[in-house]
Amino acid sequence: MIQKLISNIKKTHAPIVVGLDPMMNYIPEQVKQRAFTEFGETLEGAAEAIWQYNKEIVDCTYDLIPAVKPQIAMYEQFGIEGLKAFKKTVDYCKEKGLVVIGDVKRGDIGSTSAAYAVGHLGKVQVGSKKYAAFDEDFATVNPYLGSDGIKPFIDICREEKKGLFILVKTSNPSSGEFQDQLIDGKPLYELVGEKVAQWGGECMGEEYSYIGAVVGATYPEMGKVLRKVMPKSYILVPGYGAQGGKGADLVHFFNEDGLGAIVNSSRGIIAAYKQEKYAKFGAEHFGEASRAAVEDMVKDIDGALQNR
Amino acid sequence: MIQKLISNIKKTHAPIVVGLDPMMNYIPEQVKQRAFTEFGETLEGAAEAIWQYNKEIVDCTYDLIPAVKPQIAMYEQFGIEGLKAFKKTVDYCKEKGLVVIGDVKRGDIGSTSAAYAVGHLGKVQVGSKKYAAFDEDFATVNPYLGSDGIKPFIDICREEKKGLFILVKTSNPSSGEFQDQLIDGKPLYELVGEKVAQWGGECMGEEYSYIGAVVGATYPEMGKVLRKVMPKSYILVPGYGAQGGKGADLVHFFNEDGLGAIVNSSRGIIAAYKQEKYAKFGAEHFGEASRAAVEDMVKDIDGALQNR
Repeated sequence: MIQKLISNIKKTHAPIVVGLDPMMNYIPEQVKQRAFTEFGETLEGAAEAIWQYNKEIVDCTYDLIPAVKPQIAMYEQFGIEGLKAFKKTVDYCKEKGLVVIGDVKRGDIGSTSAAYAVGHLGKVQVGSKKYAAFDEDFATVNPYLGSDGIKPFIDICREEKKGLFILVKTSNPSSGEFQDQLIDGKPLYELVGEKVAQWGGECMGEEYSYIGAVVGATYPEMGKVLRKVMPKSYILVPGYGAQGGKGADLVHFFNEDGLGAIVNSSRGIIAAYKQEKYAKFGAEHFGEASRAAVEDMVKDIDGALQNR
Repeated sequence: MIQKLISNIKKTHAPIVVGLDPMMNYIPEQVKQRAFTEFGETLEGAAEAIWQYNKEIVDCTYDLIPAVKPQIAMYEQFGIEGLKAFKKTVDYCKEKGLVVIGDVKRGDIGSTSAAYAVGHLGKVQVGSKKYAAFDEDFATVNPYLGSDGIKPFIDICREEKKGLFILVKTSNPSSGEFQDQLIDGKPLYELVGEKVAQWGGECMGEEYSYIGAVVGATYPEMGKVLRKVMPKSYILVPGYGAQGGKGADLVHFFNEDGLGAIVNSSRGIIAAYKQEKYAKFGAEHFGEASRAAVEDMVKDIDGALQNR
């Protein structure tokens, strides 16, 4: 799957991923109203609004982008109905040729991680049959429990040719509270990065490993260090746009080959129609606004990479 | 909810929680066969088997125990159908008067943690209406992202009078890889424990906080230290029984008042019928075997607490 991700990136010239994190207040009124008219103000109605919103954004952007990253929490909060919309979104994006990164941030002790890995990346055994439950292409994983919480994910990735992005340095303001703590003079995130490099070394695609890392755009200096610590790992970079990261901050997340990083934007793309810059599209044409925002984001990152 | 947990513990004299982690190979053949006959070897069939298995165990043990802890991964691996069985289990256990600890180990940046908190402990807004999606009483949470990943959970707990158990020192063999790393001479888990104590101090029930911690039974010496670091936090202790922890190892997780800890056993209870000790019940009476295992576990822990 890392090969498909890289091939999609080369084809689109866009090292970006659109975060499908459909908060209710991002969804235009007309989309919500249509869904509520059909299903009422119910969990089913919310799920329908989310699905219609996602579909429009995907339809308007899929030819420009290599991948999407649905954040499962935004679906899970609507319970079973929300998770049905998550699954529908995963399937639809795959049909459109997109790589799907399930932003699930799971992680537990061995046997439990194995169940998460099976559910999100693999196939579960039921009697004599096997079924893929959520079937994303990549999943994000939390490293706090150490190797034996990660290994079961790696095993499934090997079997299924899928991939991981392991949290190393997250984009949020308080990520330093534990992640930046110094251990023998080295911050914890670097120690985690070294582990990612080690795990990734055993899981190589052609030039890159299918075990990647998450490093926030909001910490460019740390990104520069971590790039060197994990030269063969793809870095998923959240925090661009709405969270404050800019193209110029991101050049050091990339390798000299122009590869090695994929930058996520969620709100900045999917709620673009709410920004003054894209207001001319109006809420009715929110998908077109998202398309314009994708084009601008690609230009911003490409420009920064050209000028480095 | 911490008050209900404590009151349930006092009523049953059992500081224990039954982990409802229904792996397919724990479920007796006759339960699976009945489910597969009705629904086929499908995800729906697996979910039905899980539900019938859980129901029997709950029916046979609910009067002896204060709480259950369903591990959501074991349901999530069967996709939407599995999660329906999770929800059915949560609802049924609450009807039976049990406190339900959702072992979900969620945790993300602020806005995403807020969605998880709403989905598992709170109510989600849909237009003018509000719905509780999964509605557990407590949830387990991963601290790797720091305060702003935890705060949204705490906010919802305050609103809804619910609670958390935050991972501090997990029970698995490789938990030390990051958690034991020394920061100014103090292990990371202790630093996390100090944070839990601080967050918990702002969320007090009567004697205990509703912000608790997870500390593995497999690390009794660290439990002893952490008990003092977080005197007002309930400690959820996994790793008893099948993972190797014994009653005698656990006394230091408790405070002098005999409270402050709740010990989880999953396999040791729900798959008791597979142990030689309880083989006389046979697979047909697996619920009775679970009941006997609960009685023995309570005796083991109570004996250890009496002898300390």
